[in-house]
Amino acid sequence: MTYVNENFLKLAPSYFFVEIAKKVAAFKEKNPDKADSVIRCGIGDVTEPLPAASIKALHKAVDEMAARETFRGYAPESGYEFLRHAIAETDYRKRGLKISDDEIFVSDGSKCDCANIIDILGKGNKIAIPDPVYPVYYDTNIMAGNDNILFVNCTESNGFVPQIPNEKTDLIYLCFPNNPTGSVATKDQLKLWVDYALKNKSIILFDAAYEAFIRDPNLPKSIYEIEGARNCAIETRSFSKNGGFTGLRCGFMVIPKSVIAYSKDGKNSVDLNSLWNRRQSSKFNGVSYPVQRAAEALYSEEGKKEVKALTDFYMNNAKIIGETLRKLGIPFSGGDNAPYVWAKTIDGKSSWEMFDYLLNELQIVTTPGSGFGKMGEGYIRISSFNSLENIQKASERLLKIK
Amino acid sequence: MTYVNENFLKLAPSYFFVEIAKKVAAFKEKNPDKADSVIRCGIGDVTEPLPAASIKALHKAVDEMAARETFRGYAPESGYEFLRHAIAETDYRKRGLKISDDEIFVSDGSKCDCANIIDILGKGNKIAIPDPVYPVYYDTNIMAGNDNILFVNCTESNGFVPQIPNEKTDLIYLCFPNNPTGSVATKDQLKLWVDYALKNKSIILFDAAYEAFIRDPNLPKSIYEIEGARNCAIETRSFSKNGGFTGLRCGFMVIPKSVIAYSKDGKNSVDLNSLWNRRQSSKFNGVSYPVQRAAEALYSEEGKKEVKALTDFYMNNAKIIGETLRKLGIPFSGGDNAPYVWAKTIDGKSSWEMFDYLLNELQIVTTPGSGFGKMGEGYIRISSFNSLENIQKASERLLKIK
Repeated sequence: MTYVNENFLKLAPSYFFVEIAKKVAAFKEKNPDKADSVIRCGIGDVTEPLPAASIKALHKAVDEMAARETFRGYAPESGYEFLRHAIAETDYRKRGLKISDDEIFVSDGSKCDCANIIDILGKGNKIAIPDPVYPVYYDTNIMAGNDNILFVNCTESNGFVPQIPNEKTDLIYLCFPNNPTGSVATKDQLKLWVDYALKNKSIILFDAAYEAFIRDPNLPKSIYEIEGARNCAIETRSFSKNGGFTGLRCGFMVIPKSVIAYSKDGKNSVDLNSLWNRRQSSKFNGVSYPVQRAAEALYSEEGKKEVKALTDFYMNNAKIIGETLRKLGIPFSGGDNAPYVWAKTIDGKSSWEMFDYLLNELQIVTTPGSGFGKMGEGYIRISSFNSLENIQKASERLLKIK
Repeated sequence: MTYVNENFLKLAPSYFFVEIAKKVAAFKEKNPDKADSVIRCGIGDVTEPLPAASIKALHKAVDEMAARETFRGYAPESGYEFLRHAIAETDYRKRGLKISDDEIFVSDGSKCDCANIIDILGKGNKIAIPDPVYPVYYDTNIMAGNDNILFVNCTESNGFVPQIPNEKTDLIYLCFPNNPTGSVATKDQLKLWVDYALKNKSIILFDAAYEAFIRDPNLPKSIYEIEGARNCAIETRSFSKNGGFTGLRCGFMVIPKSVIAYSKDGKNSVDLNSLWNRRQSSKFNGVSYPVQRAAEALYSEEGKKEVKALTDFYMNNAKIIGETLRKLGIPFSGGDNAPYVWAKTIDGKSSWEMFDYLLNELQIVTTPGSGFGKMGEGYIRISSFNSLENIQKASERLLKIK
């Protein structure tokens, strides 16, 4: 008799964003006349075409795959050296951060990395998860049977940057620029977390998927800007939002060789870089070659300009959403160094009531804040990933709320 | 203090194929004059360009990603309907096997599927793993803490098809055409396993990554050709070997809705199709869109012809290897319905001794059989994935053994 992993039964039957997609589909079916006017400001999915540099790189790589002399089979599980080098050099070393090429692990996306990292960690870790936050951290820990979870609250009063808990935790998830609140921790705020982790021999998983949207030069784009982070932090990044790769699939994880974890008795320590290498070589077969070339192209001079233009485009959308909310007198955070705007619901509505209201009355899809955690109740997340035209239309409709 | 998953420490520090790659690299460094003449018949990595149908589909999809109107963001986690339908229709329904589109889960490869499926299964399952076999089954179970493993032996005397064990097991890995032995189970042989699984409420994971190499029309290409398999079997397949996608990354898993697993107390049952859906939506973000189009193209009339030509090409290589071994009087199996030839070592050499001998003396890379399990000792695996020219050269060199 095959036993099932019963931890799965503790979760909601559908992943949060799947639930929303179902609701939208049901609305469209019920209201065929309004189906075409629905504007998606829900899921953080990009809408603009891939940068020209990546398109060129893709075509070239596809041509290479068409000829025996240039054909490539299995890629190195941790990524081609050309991409690992471009990442380490551009995102880290040129910014004064010591990260070697072999501390970069190329993957098919941050969601997979955030989910799979638990594989190499043991049972019995106490997990700190911000509330509200990207649901994958919580869901995947529950799936793995890690139910010793401490939620660290992100509220208006702390500027949506969680405070250091009074108790010890072993694995800490941090996400800045934050999904969903759009908040960004300062260097001083992150320093507190790094010191806390070092003191407790804990590990921070720093999700920096949205770093390309930071416009304030004083805000940290990487956890490694904080002294000591090389000894306690893993960082995940994605090409999904800077290069628009949601449909191509590429991201990476940084695991410095100096990050270690311990045996249950505390007597032995192992470095996570080599364990992750072992994990990936047995459970993963590398990222599609043309996709890795497309990612490499984002680091070319042309690519960098295009990434800047693309993220500027979405940030302009975020600005428009912010201005609209300001006109309406709706309190919100985010939108200046992040593509997400985190807005209070109106008239004391719950998150789902506000979601339903905006979908039914204005045909705008948002994301109910409560889906990101208890503390998200009373908020909705508005995504700036859309065309300018749609954002302008959505703003016009929102102004009708008044 | 963060605890590590100590199960990882029970494994060899490197994945088997990484170990071999290191050995080859060391040989080349020591013998720079011979480095260029090394012929790789080790890892099962394809060498021929992608089918023209896939190349065309890739270019077209890349162009779609370059225009706002046709751009695609996040793909459905379980695959685009166009691909799920092509698979279910062509590989199953047209062959008389009842599989619905939503029983197909598109992935980035069989290695990941074989490794990740354990996520949804519980602790305490007794696992049956053939010996010798693809090392991923064993390694990933050890990583997950599943150490209740029964090896079922594949030997010359049973034609490298394992016999039904006398005891109950809960999860059974079968791989036909087999990697590494090249053996293929008959329908009668598979029927015994399906009956055994049904009787014990066990699940079979049937790895059919090499089904495209079956030439004998009487041999089963899918476990679903066996009555009752829909109630006990999951099947994984890959585009790596039929379409040469090792560097593109695409495969799929079939999970019939009628396959169920049980709670530890045996009182509740859950269908694995919905659990896998839940797992994929939280831990995976779908396969690259252009790659899914490339896979779809393999099912076009042009694509099917090209897959046939590509697999015929490698099968001709396998035939040449087989003929060479016959001339040398070296006993072997495989090579007629599988791309691998499983050969006995000479002069009582161990697998690694034979590997070293062939590398050092003839500059031919093979795979030592013992890396696939204890029962693989005394054998080497020779892969037919290479150019005709290299296979002919390798054969000429092998004939010098005499």
